[in-house]
Amino acid sequence: MAVYTEVTDDALAAFLADYDIGTMVAFRGIAEGVENSNFSLRTTGGDFILTLYEKRVDPHDLPWFLGLMEHLAQRGLVCPQPVHGRDGAALRHLCGRHAAITTFLPGVWPRRVRQSHCGPVGTALAKLHLAGADYAPRRANALGPRSWMPLLDRCRARADEVQAGLTLELDHALVAILSAWPEGLPVGHIHADLFPDNVFFLDNALSGLIDFYFAATDLLAYDVAICLNAWCFEPDFSFNVTKSRALLAAYQSVRPLSAAEQAALPVLCQGAAIRFLLTRLFDWLNTPAGALVTRKDPLEYRRRLRFHMSATDGRAYGL
Amino acid sequence: MAVYTEVTDDALAAFLADYDIGTMVAFRGIAEGVENSNFSLRTTGGDFILTLYEKRVDPHDLPWFLGLMEHLAQRGLVCPQPVHGRDGAALRHLCGRHAAITTFLPGVWPRRVRQSHCGPVGTALAKLHLAGADYAPRRANALGPRSWMPLLDRCRARADEVQAGLTLELDHALVAILSAWPEGLPVGHIHADLFPDNVFFLDNALSGLIDFYFAATDLLAYDVAICLNAWCFEPDFSFNVTKSRALLAAYQSVRPLSAAEQAALPVLCQGAAIRFLLTRLFDWLNTPAGALVTRKDPLEYRRRLRFHMSATDGRAYGL
Repeated sequence: MAVYTEVTDDALAAFLADYDIGTMVAFRGIAEGVENSNFSLRTTGGDFILTLYEKRVDPHDLPWFLGLMEHLAQRGLVCPQPVHGRDGAALRHLCGRHAAITTFLPGVWPRRVRQSHCGPVGTALAKLHLAGADYAPRRANALGPRSWMPLLDRCRARADEVQAGLTLELDHALVAILSAWPEGLPVGHIHADLFPDNVFFLDNALSGLIDFYFAATDLLAYDVAICLNAWCFEPDFSFNVTKSRALLAAYQSVRPLSAAEQAALPVLCQGAAIRFLLTRLFDWLNTPAGALVTRKDPLEYRRRLRFHMSATDGRAYGL
Repeated sequence: MAVYTEVTDDALAAFLADYDIGTMVAFRGIAEGVENSNFSLRTTGGDFILTLYEKRVDPHDLPWFLGLMEHLAQRGLVCPQPVHGRDGAALRHLCGRHAAITTFLPGVWPRRVRQSHCGPVGTALAKLHLAGADYAPRRANALGPRSWMPLLDRCRARADEVQAGLTLELDHALVAILSAWPEGLPVGHIHADLFPDNVFFLDNALSGLIDFYFAATDLLAYDVAICLNAWCFEPDFSFNVTKSRALLAAYQSVRPLSAAEQAALPVLCQGAAIRFLLTRLFDWLNTPAGALVTRKDPLEYRRRLRFHMSATDGRAYGL
């Protein structure tokens, strides 16, 4: 769930007075999302999302995220738009947190991924990569390859509590992945978390992308690899190459992958799998009992990782 | 939080096809509520709440709850209205749960109770009591006085883990309360859970009541006592007699309390305090680590209980 901070009605009314979007009509906490507190907000001016940024988000990054969302929308990508206050500022303060109001996006995220979702996701990801090309500010990927060994080191002492032999397997995999990590591939702004719960569909068409708070400047093809992990495994963790082929073909119809990007796909997918495995493992070992957040099983990503470790080239993904 | 059951987009679309409210536009889990799964649902026909009833609600009671809500609304009380499917049924099935769609109620519940909230709450409660008078079906209060000793018995072995001496204090209080419990007071349908998060306000006026899933047939003045517990204690658990006086005066302007009801107010308030103390205590001792629900501190109600135990008559409440 995601309401870590309670907003009093008085504080909200005062907050809204700094905007030109009317007065409050309804206000409810949203259960989705794990990093920030999100509220569905209706005013006499329309529907919005109020986000309070919680401690896992570095406040210095917030202007970059909000700026990226505005930049992408100006270039036709449908994503939430920061609403500016009367003084022009979109990033404000509420109840001791950084806070922003963004526009409401119609649509529903697919709880069960069908093949027909994967093409539109590939297309949207490629459009995002192209639309971001002239957004000048950069943000280093705090969860990129350089973060993975330090993250494993912080889990090392207790990783085998989750599964015997896990530390050894991750050590071997990580050394192999980092030594094979590609250089010279096209770099741009990536979403870095384009999982099904961040993609809305309406009437069988993709209606928008949300949650840009992991976005960063990194290898574009790594973002594709994250999507292959996020969209192309079945609930039993078998890899569905038909979904993968649909996602990649649609992506390439907008932004063709270079030969080097195609060749790097297995190691990029391995990296994406180990990135989510490591953050889940860290959270698993460090989430206090009684916490509001449901822990996600890190071993689901060991299953994915093993598939990618067995891939020798792009053909494994339907290229 | 309150999304225990995940609803797939396919299942939701099929579910909506049985209604005449258009097609899906947006769908988000709601963080509020602890008993059921609630979703904010927007269709081309408007805004609704989808509720999936989870295991703590007895499905046999659901027609009674939905019928009460319709009955009260027909008599002018603003509360969510069950939406009927094309076949006329409001209570349906979705994802292995009983489910219902109700109308969306504008408004925001007060996170911080002000004196100005308490009059409107008293008025609304009295109107609810009058409006319910001709709703013929009855529902025994499963959390009424007869349930309290069995509930304490189920906590007895471990209650002192929460606070040394708690079992003894509760035993003494409960024996005193049950022996003084009034007979012959007016009976009707009570909300039984009219806490601030179940009362919406809009532009400083009460805009509606929600969450009738603890409603039952019991002493009307006991419902008043629940509200005194819910609305008239400050965050430091001191009793605010100004709020209490406002709530009671407004209630009595619509439905005057009889002399017997007024005289019983201290014991009714004691009973209300021990009822919430006991259910919180039970949940505290039985909520598994890592559960989605935040446990609420039972000792907050020991503070309230002690106040009410010291009250000798209605004057303690501003009567």
